Amino acid sequence: MTDSRPIGVFDSGVGGLTVLRALKAALPTESTVYLGDTARVPYGTRSAQTVITYAVNNARTLVKHGDIKALVVACNTVSAVAIEALRDAVSMPVIGVIEPGAEAALQALSVLHSVHPSSMPSSPSITVLGTQGTVRSGAYARVLALRGHAQPTAAIACPLLVPLAEEGWTTGDVPALVIDRYLQALPADVGVVILGCTHYPLLKDVIAQRLAIHRPGAMVVDGAAATAAATAALLQEHGLCSPAGATPIHRLLVTDAPQQMAALAPAFLGETVDPSSIELVDVIFDAS
Amino acid sequence: MTDSRPIGVFDSGVGGLTVLRALKAALPTESTVYLGDTARVPYGTRSAQTVITYAVNNARTLVKHGDIKALVVACNTVSAVAIEALRDAVSMPVIGVIEPGAEAALQALSVLHSVHPSSMPSSPSITVLGTQGTVRSGAYARVLALRGHAQPTAAIACPLLVPLAEEGWTTGDVPALVIDRYLQALPADVGVVILGCTHYPLLKDVIAQRLAIHRPGAMVVDGAAATAAATAALLQEHGLCSPAGATPIHRLLVTDAPQQMAALAPAFLGETVDPSSIELVDVIFDAS
Repeated sequence: MTDSRPIGVFDSGVGGLTVLRALKAALPTESTVYLGDTARVPYGTRSAQTVITYAVNNARTLVKHGDIKALVVACNTVSAVAIEALRDAVSMPVIGVIEPGAEAALQALSVLHSVHPSSMPSSPSITVLGTQGTVRSGAYARVLALRGHAQPTAAIACPLLVPLAEEGWTTGDVPALVIDRYLQALPADVGVVILGCTHYPLLKDVIAQRLAIHRPGAMVVDGAAATAAATAALLQEHGLCSPAGATPIHRLLVTDAPQQMAALAPAFLGETVDPSSIELVDVIFDAS
Repeated sequence: MTDSRPIGVFDSGVGGLTVLRALKAALPTESTVYLGDTARVPYGTRSAQTVITYAVNNARTLVKHGDIKALVVACNTVSAVAIEALRDAVSMPVIGVIEPGAEAALQALSVLHSVHPSSMPSSPSITVLGTQGTVRSGAYARVLALRGHAQPTAAIACPLLVPLAEEGWTTGDVPALVIDRYLQALPADVGVVILGCTHYPLLKDVIAQRLAIHRPGAMVVDGAAATAAATAALLQEHGLCSPAGATPIHRLLVTDAPQQMAALAPAFLGETVDPSSIELVDVIFDAS
């Protein structure tokens, strides 16, 4: 069984394009419709109830404009608090970034165990870097505990990292100093750091460099590739894969400021985007 | 003639509390109702049309909840693009922060002329630091030109400064390095720098310190006190001043996350706020 309809992907803004990039790499024949809710970005500082409302708005907007077959939530803040509400709101498979990211972190831990760097404690812990909303939710800690991870999972809110990524200040003194300041809160026994925000992969190199100084041997994990792999498995499971050899169509929707999305896209998506191809849509507010 | 109704004040979030602080200092018998649109903050990266829509929503929300007699727009981004739309939407005096800020900059320039520091050019120019929206609008340059200022006015978008202020990172290496990077774009002949965002007064000391290194003798101006003075004059002109000796009542409304407003308020407002006193309201979307 195949299904040529697109996968719907949404984020509060441009950050989710790092997940879209991984999806396009892993699933080259799948069409996608990406919605960036740029009229209401960022979600990371908002209450859980507001994030849930916005997330359901976005899902309905994608259903209306995109005729989608599955929904990928390419935003940690939304994945942390709204997955159940989204599953209630739309009748299709829904996948977030937190479970795949947690899974990738556990795999990285098992690699650490097998190579056991001398600088590492015998039972290293996992720390999440993310938005205030993701940190407050405790979502990664919950998922990791459910999967049997025994160490407490720390989480550090890093509000400066999103604007650093969007400014393109990803090398040099400024990001290094900012990251050093956030990494001061790392537990002594940390072995794996999860990039728990879709903007942070743009800062992965400098985060890894600073982490190597603060905690030699510790690893940095980002969940984008794991999310793409989990999406592939989900499509397979539900008989929703595209026909073999299909030529994919990719659409980008925003709720505000298409030019700005076009300007930021290359750094996040890894390709240029024609501003005139970006569709400006109204968010659907009502619950019907 | 007097009027005991409150002054309405709104901003996208907490930044406008620096203006509220100046209003309370200048007008100690006036009651106020402040609305922070924390469900949709920040406005600085949004399109002008979206900012106008949000601003009119906020004005109607203040009219509904506050029975206000005048409206102070405590946000540069809104003041830059939406003052006319607000004057059409509500039947009361409306004042923004840009005209008072520009006026304060011209006064600072005249001080510079009178003391003529040796490091200054004979006709120094004005530069605005602000959000992307304020910079793109060219609003300060327009107002300054209308008032006869002949030099071109530069504007530098500084997206990192809002999160720095909200994180409380207002001293030390990180803000100094970030500000140095933005100040690289200063014209050689700059004499006055306008803090064109209501968050920036929290960084005024470090901005002044770095400016003193890059452009000795140049001055930093923030428009909050000038906005309060202009509001006092406007109330007088319209017969809307509070009765002498009135005991003011101050209310804080937000559209999301009252706890976060309470946590940030001391740094911006200069006083603590009881979280339970902050009122959570829905924004009014329709045009009626």
